[in-house]
Amino acid sequence: MIRPAELIERKRDGGELSAAELTELVLGFARGEVPDYQMAAFLMAVHFRGLSAAETFVLTDAMIASGETIDLSGALGRKAVDKHSTGGVGDKTSLAVGPIVAACGVPFGKMSGRGLGHTGGTLDKLESIPGFRVELTTEEFVAQVRQVGLAIVGQSADLVPADKQLYALRDVTATVDNVSLIAASIMSKKLAAGAEAIVLDVKVGDGAFMKTEVAARELANAMIELGRRAGREVVCLLTDMDQPLGRAVGNALEIREAVETIRGQGPPDFTELVLDGSAQLLALSDLGIGLEEARSRAETVVRDGTALAAYERWIEAQGGDPSVSALEQAPAVRPVVAERAGFVTRLGALDVGLAALSLGAGRRTKADEIDHAVGVVCLRKRGDRVEAGEALAELHARSEESASAALAAVAGAYELAEEAPPPRPVVLDVVR
Amino acid sequence: MIRPAELIERKRDGGELSAAELTELVLGFARGEVPDYQMAAFLMAVHFRGLSAAETFVLTDAMIASGETIDLSGALGRKAVDKHSTGGVGDKTSLAVGPIVAACGVPFGKMSGRGLGHTGGTLDKLESIPGFRVELTTEEFVAQVRQVGLAIVGQSADLVPADKQLYALRDVTATVDNVSLIAASIMSKKLAAGAEAIVLDVKVGDGAFMKTEVAARELANAMIELGRRAGREVVCLLTDMDQPLGRAVGNALEIREAVETIRGQGPPDFTELVLDGSAQLLALSDLGIGLEEARSRAETVVRDGTALAAYERWIEAQGGDPSVSALEQAPAVRPVVAERAGFVTRLGALDVGLAALSLGAGRRTKADEIDHAVGVVCLRKRGDRVEAGEALAELHARSEESASAALAAVAGAYELAEEAPPPRPVVLDVVR
Repeated sequence: MIRPAELIERKRDGGELSAAELTELVLGFARGEVPDYQMAAFLMAVHFRGLSAAETFVLTDAMIASGETIDLSGALGRKAVDKHSTGGVGDKTSLAVGPIVAACGVPFGKMSGRGLGHTGGTLDKLESIPGFRVELTTEEFVAQVRQVGLAIVGQSADLVPADKQLYALRDVTATVDNVSLIAASIMSKKLAAGAEAIVLDVKVGDGAFMKTEVAARELANAMIELGRRAGREVVCLLTDMDQPLGRAVGNALEIREAVETIRGQGPPDFTELVLDGSAQLLALSDLGIGLEEARSRAETVVRDGTALAAYERWIEAQGGDPSVSALEQAPAVRPVVAERAGFVTRLGALDVGLAALSLGAGRRTKADEIDHAVGVVCLRKRGDRVEAGEALAELHARSEESASAALAAVAGAYELAEEAPPPRPVVLDVVR
Repeated sequence: MIRPAELIERKRDGGELSAAELTELVLGFARGEVPDYQMAAFLMAVHFRGLSAAETFVLTDAMIASGETIDLSGALGRKAVDKHSTGGVGDKTSLAVGPIVAACGVPFGKMSGRGLGHTGGTLDKLESIPGFRVELTTEEFVAQVRQVGLAIVGQSADLVPADKQLYALRDVTATVDNVSLIAASIMSKKLAAGAEAIVLDVKVGDGAFMKTEVAARELANAMIELGRRAGREVVCLLTDMDQPLGRAVGNALEIREAVETIRGQGPPDFTELVLDGSAQLLALSDLGIGLEEARSRAETVVRDGTALAAYERWIEAQGGDPSVSALEQAPAVRPVVAERAGFVTRLGALDVGLAALSLGAGRRTKADEIDHAVGVVCLRKRGDRVEAGEALAELHARSEESASAALAAVAGAYELAEEAPPPRPVVLDVVR
């Protein structure tokens, strides 16, 4: 039997825990035998001392062992792929990547979380669609991936219960931002869900959890190492989150933009990320094609309407109405006007995210209800030219009052200058 | 209303809490409103980042404010003095200092704790005395100090309840050994108990909590600063704990040695510390005398029997039998014999303490019962000459078996050499 106080002390003093010790600590915590105050002290010691690569893998493994796992490949009889994003403002990538990958004949099954932040998570966005069901049993989930080729559902409570408990504790003890803990949290869920190849979108910048490319790269490397140790293929895209992704920020607004992008009419930066992410997934799949061919196939299914058909099939399979006209529209739409002419040199992702939150698009606490219709549409983005009096952005609000309240925040997110800023690609790097 | 997670995060990142924030955190914890997992994370952040002098004072003050306080001086109508030791092996100083100070006409009222370690605490030692009552109400305590001039009782649960809660949490989360937390814990209890002048005995060495003189000095300075901010006089003695204090280690054995010392027949090192500590207390008292005169008065009351009379009055006032013959004796007494001749160059305090613990003199867990009769008597100490075949020490055991089991540990505590080691005083320094 382990003595948690001794393990805390060893970590506090910079030592390493054995696999047996760390496993017992995590599983003991998951079973309620190691009290939360000891785990909280351990997590704070980890904040200061870190976990070794070996410890991070053991932690991930123990978290997986706390619950059930899915053998998606076994159930499908073929290699399964998955993607995950560390999250950012306007990030609706999975909603477009899923149908594109499925249209190329690669099954895509993803378990997602809800958002606690500026805007909803992928599940909240999907719930903008009238009738859409996010709560499927594991059996329904696997059956839909097999039959329809695509499912995005809520994370099963049976998978990695230790992560939920650990995250709840980290959230209230200032122990969230440790790279090993973040990597273990993300990867335990991905590994438990059964995909053999995983594309990770690690966001970098003002609106992301990782503020610098150095921090993002560190997280990417930690997750790749966890995948390698578990025998999975992992590719990380480091992508820009200094400005919102695409134009739409807000749940129904983002569904609309995802559909436009699947039709080939999306904003350039979001389209680029969707096609790149899709190509990475296809290249990792069992199609046996290279990245160039994969990119070409992704572009083809967008152009010929196959991706849109896959989207519609998927939404209907989960009970939703796939037509864009079914999405609720906000009653008050109000422009944010440029006071002077110039090039947009900055469009702060965090500012826009907080404005969307103030309009009701996100949650401040778990109990908050999301208003699916509201949000911000950034008509001009970094590098775009605007004339005085033209609209920079649109506020979609529940009322004129709430629109007024959010106006200054969105206006303040923009900086204009005489000269265009140097171009910055959305995909900053690919790490593998 | 404070948000604990924000305060944890600020401390984690090296920032400082305001007086209002830290007070609310500590009192919220004492009231059960701040959960123990948040306090545990905060304490671990304090381990790494420390507390400023101002924060340490606020913490001490908040802990005092969590319960009641005693105005001992007000109740007595004169200045009260108190002493405290950070604890070590064979430390029975209060048992001899109390009667000496009282015999000199200075009232001495002390609240003590129980021991969790090698041997019992002061209360456990006093409970070796048949009939002795350590649980007095605060009113009985004050009345006895007024009438008899001396009382040593259990810490009232009404004083500084936050310390008890915090210590219990620190004990199981590897957050005990931070100098600010230790200083606040000790000083909150001393300040709440009402003495205006306090002599602190900070033990240094192998058998003490503070292993080095640097660490002991740091703790001494922190406690002196807390006293200064609270308007109390504090003097710290830094004293040697590389070897046990005096010869006796074990509860009844230590009572016996304290009485011998009060009679002027104690071991040299313990006698020196008792007279020095008593002199410091008398010099801080309202007698208006200097250290030299104070030392002389302490020696006088030992020589003329007044101190012994004060001891007997005190023990009887608390229901005990003051005669040494009333103390229980261990059934098995066995010598530890020197295998070679030489000078004792080392007598490990921790080794002797652990041997006493194995004989039953201390507690491994709170639930353990103490055997008051057992322990170790170190007949030879550092610098003493021994011939081959002579006894180094005596084991006082419940049975021959338990004596045998402890033999090697006590023998191993001794190191002998041809040359005598350089002399080392028991009082290493006085810090004020």
